[in-house]
Amino acid sequence: MDAEQLRECAHKMVDFISDYYKNIENFPVLSQVQPGYLRELLPDSAPTHPESFQDVLNDVQAKILPGVTHWQSPDYFAYFPSNSSVAGFLGEMLSAGINMVGFSWITSPAATELEMIVLDWLAKALKLPDEFLSIGPGGGVIQGTASEAVLVVLLAARDKVLRKVGKDAIGKLVVYSSDQTHSALQKACQIGGIHPENHRVLKTDPSTEYALSPESFCEAISHDIASGLIPFFLCATVGTTSSTAVDPLLALGEITKSNGMWFHVDAAYAGSACICQSSATILMDRSALIQSLSTNPEFLKNKASQGNMVVDYKDWQIPLGRRFRSLKLWMVLRLYGLENLQAYIRNHIELAKMFEELVKQDPRFEVAAPRKFSLVCLRLLPPQNNEDCANKLNHDLLESVNSTGKIFISHTVLSSKYVLRFAVGAPLTEERHIVAAWKVLQEEASALLRIL
Amino acid sequence: MDAEQLRECAHKMVDFISDYYKNIENFPVLSQVQPGYLRELLPDSAPTHPESFQDVLNDVQAKILPGVTHWQSPDYFAYFPSNSSVAGFLGEMLSAGINMVGFSWITSPAATELEMIVLDWLAKALKLPDEFLSIGPGGGVIQGTASEAVLVVLLAARDKVLRKVGKDAIGKLVVYSSDQTHSALQKACQIGGIHPENHRVLKTDPSTEYALSPESFCEAISHDIASGLIPFFLCATVGTTSSTAVDPLLALGEITKSNGMWFHVDAAYAGSACICQSSATILMDRSALIQSLSTNPEFLKNKASQGNMVVDYKDWQIPLGRRFRSLKLWMVLRLYGLENLQAYIRNHIELAKMFEELVKQDPRFEVAAPRKFSLVCLRLLPPQNNEDCANKLNHDLLESVNSTGKIFISHTVLSSKYVLRFAVGAPLTEERHIVAAWKVLQEEASALLRIL
Repeated sequence: MDAEQLRECAHKMVDFISDYYKNIENFPVLSQVQPGYLRELLPDSAPTHPESFQDVLNDVQAKILPGVTHWQSPDYFAYFPSNSSVAGFLGEMLSAGINMVGFSWITSPAATELEMIVLDWLAKALKLPDEFLSIGPGGGVIQGTASEAVLVVLLAARDKVLRKVGKDAIGKLVVYSSDQTHSALQKACQIGGIHPENHRVLKTDPSTEYALSPESFCEAISHDIASGLIPFFLCATVGTTSSTAVDPLLALGEITKSNGMWFHVDAAYAGSACICQSSATILMDRSALIQSLSTNPEFLKNKASQGNMVVDYKDWQIPLGRRFRSLKLWMVLRLYGLENLQAYIRNHIELAKMFEELVKQDPRFEVAAPRKFSLVCLRLLPPQNNEDCANKLNHDLLESVNSTGKIFISHTVLSSKYVLRFAVGAPLTEERHIVAAWKVLQEEASALLRIL
Repeated sequence: MDAEQLRECAHKMVDFISDYYKNIENFPVLSQVQPGYLRELLPDSAPTHPESFQDVLNDVQAKILPGVTHWQSPDYFAYFPSNSSVAGFLGEMLSAGINMVGFSWITSPAATELEMIVLDWLAKALKLPDEFLSIGPGGGVIQGTASEAVLVVLLAARDKVLRKVGKDAIGKLVVYSSDQTHSALQKACQIGGIHPENHRVLKTDPSTEYALSPESFCEAISHDIASGLIPFFLCATVGTTSSTAVDPLLALGEITKSNGMWFHVDAAYAGSACICQSSATILMDRSALIQSLSTNPEFLKNKASQGNMVVDYKDWQIPLGRRFRSLKLWMVLRLYGLENLQAYIRNHIELAKMFEELVKQDPRFEVAAPRKFSLVCLRLLPPQNNEDCANKLNHDLLESVNSTGKIFISHTVLSSKYVLRFAVGAPLTEERHIVAAWKVLQEEASALLRIL
């Protein structure tokens, strides 16, 4: 680690990355390589002697980039956006530069304190009640991913109820969600040892726009209690993955409250992620989380921790180690400001509305679920209303659209219908990309319908 | 995300970080701020309008860096090293620049394939048998942290045995480790719902240099089987956290084999981490892991995955999302080469030996555990062999040494004795830093002994 060598190489890397963004539209957005392509291009063991930085950069250009799916491309409309920004990139750089491990307050007080402060900023920006702020019983933490966020709260809720009813009752604990809830909850249940048959996946349908019905939730609880089971956790969603449905939080919250259940709201897409692209977990009461995830080995003890004077984020998350995560969020909030971030999100929603209008104007297509944010669900209608071939038709349309390399979209299934998902939100996407994307979809649809 | 704005700001950030490394010795290595220091320096909500990049950089310098504990300082000897390098930093930059999410092969084939290839390189560099390579039933994955590595294998082992004996038997499953095993195992057990009273923490002592005794392991298994319990998991360690003890892998492996148990070896410090500073998990049989951690929601289905043509790393780890982690390891291996990396590690061991010699020459101190790698455990002997005050004496020595800001060391407890840990391994540490560190320890010890 030589400061001047770092300076020289890192300046070259900055230019490499800036050039990548300048030319990002020239790549096929979905990588078109075949499985196993890279093994043929690289040696089968590590070099004994050093190679030059330029050789490695050349390999990145020639061998790695063709295998990259370009999430930052303006033509990326798949899954949900996961965006970089100048400010976010600078935050990542600084975090990698300082390269500390922030498990306890003492291992870098600034890392813990900045995270507490910016998550309070975020809670205020989201207009959450004061209980969620770190000065009270609540507080926030940035998890590595949204999956970890739902896992840690599930574990906190599990252990809280098991402390009451005894740990042998784990086979009786019941988790509730809708059939639109993200698969991260199912995985969290697997990890936490919740029996799969005790995960109630409540059916939704177009009548509620794929939102969870409080009535069916109530019914399920009553049935489970009558069977001697213990309802303890509900995961509701604001902006589901398939169609950005919004569960009725107020009504659901009343039910969880009267049944003494943990109420978790997953807003990974439509909530905080819209503002800051990070996996913030904000709690009303942090104590159950800490009770579940604490360890206190001798080699980590220190005066500040033993005196309960500080937060040690190791006890709020799965791993021990953690990066200086808050630098990124802090830089994004400061370098853009809340007003610009709001405008940025509104712009994506406007672009999605525009796309929705284009879909509506073509009678061969339908909008397959109400658009709420910046995701449009659509499908190509089958000729002669022949629903039997509709799913295959849309599956083939997805494959042919993505094979062009011009845009990348993904899919889901809603009420047994195969549906295309067009998620607007990449940072470089402008109106012209939306128009061009729609043209690609129309052209590929025409070609498919022609050979039917 | 404007390419030219990125270029301009990122060049400034490169200079900022390079200057940080140039001046890193001028900071107190352990931050000397008081709890809550940062809240008084920052506003209590996010700005509405953008701030300038220079203002933010000024704040990093004036407000953040004083609260940073400098893990990359040459005077950092605490815990274990967690080092940056020019190559590692470049890998992080590139990963943040491409900023893709590599949960499935299709979301960036290069990310998955490069990880498989470089982990095969690593397995070969570590001279692991061929079963650990990805072309066979094994393979490697880079976890976010070492804690996640032990968690995912524990879950895989748990589910494998529960598939045989039925999931209601979770209360009978027994995990074995020594009292020197990292606390990550205890946390993994908490998360996975292993009953705390079924975690056998086998005692070690100086007679085996704090290594786990196969005899006591055998005895514990027999006793548990006789009590109707089910032994299923052993975590052995190469290089324990307190004193870098090495468990006898061959003998322990025989016992786990004959009892049909999962055998996990934690070498986070002394094994792979020595070469690459990443949380590699390398398995002989990946199938149990994948069975435990798979989900397959509709919105992530794609031809390559459904056809079993590819690896989807989402099924090898806790989170769904993942960075382009292998870029960092690839750059480190290529830009340094195996020979230099080995020399780098040998140099740290030589420096630790030198420090050990210095300790041995001062009769007021003792080396408290055999030095195996680059960690030296030492303690100040109490005057008149008065062991009653020895622990407080060493605790006070730690506090006073760390309060100087000149070096940062940590501690542990071995056989009830409070012991100082001096871990050599920061990338900028040279002989002169070792000599100076020893002088700080001697001076603070003299001051303490004077007032006793």
